[in-house]
Amino acid sequence: MRVLVVGGGIIGCATAYELAKAGAGVVLFERSTPGAEASSAAAGLLALHGEPAQSELARLKLASWRLYPDVVRELRELTGIDVEHVTHGTLYPLARGEAAPAPPAGGSDLGIEVLEGKDLHGLEPALSPRIERAVFLRDDHWLNNQRLVIAYAQAAARAGVDIRPGSNVSRVLVEAGRARAVEADGERVSGDAVLLAAGAWTSELTAPLGVGLTIEPRRGQMLALVHTPPVLTYCVDGEVYLVPRPSGELLIGATVERAGFQRAVTAEGIQSLLQRALELVPSLAGLPIARTWCGFRPWAPDGLPVLGPWPAIEGLWLATGHFRNGILLAPITARLMTDWLTTGKPSVEVGDFLPERFARR
Amino acid sequence: MRVLVVGGGIIGCATAYELAKAGAGVVLFERSTPGAEASSAAAGLLALHGEPAQSELARLKLASWRLYPDVVRELRELTGIDVEHVTHGTLYPLARGEAAPAPPAGGSDLGIEVLEGKDLHGLEPALSPRIERAVFLRDDHWLNNQRLVIAYAQAAARAGVDIRPGSNVSRVLVEAGRARAVEADGERVSGDAVLLAAGAWTSELTAPLGVGLTIEPRRGQMLALVHTPPVLTYCVDGEVYLVPRPSGELLIGATVERAGFQRAVTAEGIQSLLQRALELVPSLAGLPIARTWCGFRPWAPDGLPVLGPWPAIEGLWLATGHFRNGILLAPITARLMTDWLTTGKPSVEVGDFLPERFARR
Repeated sequence: MRVLVVGGGIIGCATAYELAKAGAGVVLFERSTPGAEASSAAAGLLALHGEPAQSELARLKLASWRLYPDVVRELRELTGIDVEHVTHGTLYPLARGEAAPAPPAGGSDLGIEVLEGKDLHGLEPALSPRIERAVFLRDDHWLNNQRLVIAYAQAAARAGVDIRPGSNVSRVLVEAGRARAVEADGERVSGDAVLLAAGAWTSELTAPLGVGLTIEPRRGQMLALVHTPPVLTYCVDGEVYLVPRPSGELLIGATVERAGFQRAVTAEGIQSLLQRALELVPSLAGLPIARTWCGFRPWAPDGLPVLGPWPAIEGLWLATGHFRNGILLAPITARLMTDWLTTGKPSVEVGDFLPERFARR
Repeated sequence: MRVLVVGGGIIGCATAYELAKAGAGVVLFERSTPGAEASSAAAGLLALHGEPAQSELARLKLASWRLYPDVVRELRELTGIDVEHVTHGTLYPLARGEAAPAPPAGGSDLGIEVLEGKDLHGLEPALSPRIERAVFLRDDHWLNNQRLVIAYAQAAARAGVDIRPGSNVSRVLVEAGRARAVEADGERVSGDAVLLAAGAWTSELTAPLGVGLTIEPRRGQMLALVHTPPVLTYCVDGEVYLVPRPSGELLIGATVERAGFQRAVTAEGIQSLLQRALELVPSLAGLPIARTWCGFRPWAPDGLPVLGPWPAIEGLWLATGHFRNGILLAPITARLMTDWLTTGKPSVEVGDFLPERFARR
């Protein structure tokens, strides 16, 4: 089996790697370099919270979260790349009277507790004294997503994937109702299936095919401070999130904006991120700003991932719409798509994520 | 007469130019490139306000301010450089009940008025509706200081100044109580006088001479937004200043910090600038941030410029300590120092600025 993967972000690279491991032939087309877009713009916080505890998305996130320690080890053994995996835990400040969120379904073993007073501020002295209570997710982890996508791309190459950076797929070629080839840099490249993992740019390829699904960009602005010596030990995830990296940057993110593909950080975006960060950790005040940037998350009309075959075109597969969860969901997406493409059946519950929910509309 | 000018900022370049015009031989030493430091970091707002109306500094500022239209014309004719001189006027928001400041001594002809209500918001619709009153300085002007310092440097070169970029003066050579040479890049260069115009770095050269004057850096953080199409027509000068440039940038400045020579923009610095800018002009919210930077203003212990000869060392002259007023004061400083060096007498009142005030201490 030969799969044509379009898009060299974290989803495309991870899936290409798993497909190759499973014995498939894979060509990966990336119009820039692997991880050039949203995958690098993210902060790498593998956050479980934010979904209804019983939702399919919460379960998918938890399943992917549990895969990470092994993924990190496997990629390091294969590529030598240290993805700066940190497992100190994350603090989620609670507003006064706010209840702690329930753990996701299947997560009763997670180390979740509510800390206050000396327990909280003794653990993380940099936290503003105004914060009275916080959920501490002791097992929480984060990593350097820029390194992760490079590690996945290198692992994919070692596993035999034909990675083509700088290669622009202009269209998917559908013949007799089947997607069996793409046009890349003016040339036809054939395979048995086409997997679109083009993130916020997916609709450029699906629109000409009459696929009734619009993936839109949701801009996220970010910045990094230099924190040497470290100010924070734990991730703090409140109105903004603060991610301390071993490499010396402290990341602050992120806005969620409907701004098309306007590649800009703005006055209000950066102001609001900094103001909220300083409210959480006042001692960040004097730290140098190392850099600012933005990225474009892929957003489906219902905000959920879009995973699986497109019903009306045989051989056309989608893995996009991961919105804020692309890094977290990469390992499970890669395995799910690989199982599905090679056996014909999904290996986890995917009812909420099926592309056909948009075909029905 | 041959003058060795140390420092290729706006003060050094402008003074070298005027000295050459007056017939002096001039060597200008600049360890980087002309205007590499505070002169380029500034915003180019030629602001008259902020001093007691009867002070010598207020008079000096007004005198320099009045020179600018001719300076701009002269530099353009000589070098072809358009310094983006804009004369629309500046709005100074007033707090409720705050009185309008008195015009500086000798400035009774200035177009100063207090605007409110429709007069104010009709003039500048982008101004926040929360601002009820503002002083409008109709004749106020601003320019592109990066271009100005280059124009002065080019004009100086055309007038015969020997400009030496990348040349580091390690010390002033004092022999028999006279400053007659400097050591530059390990070589001795001789002249009749040494003029130190090294801004915040002046003390590196004066300290070994026993000169009892410490010039310290005061960091200013700034940023620029892209304002295309223009959002503002007028400068707005409140808790921060907003300077719209014809070239499409809108400058926001500036912090005043005692932070040594730490070359950094910080979380709190940029946050506070943006917050105050958005309070003045809410419609800046979505504008892209083009760049952020900082500079080091030269600060004398009393905050006033230091202009004239150092009494204990013949031939040693100082032109530094301009703090926030370096761009505005450049034309008058250049003429004053030229008159003084060539005739032996200052051409304007300089009692407050004499270096000997520090020798007396």
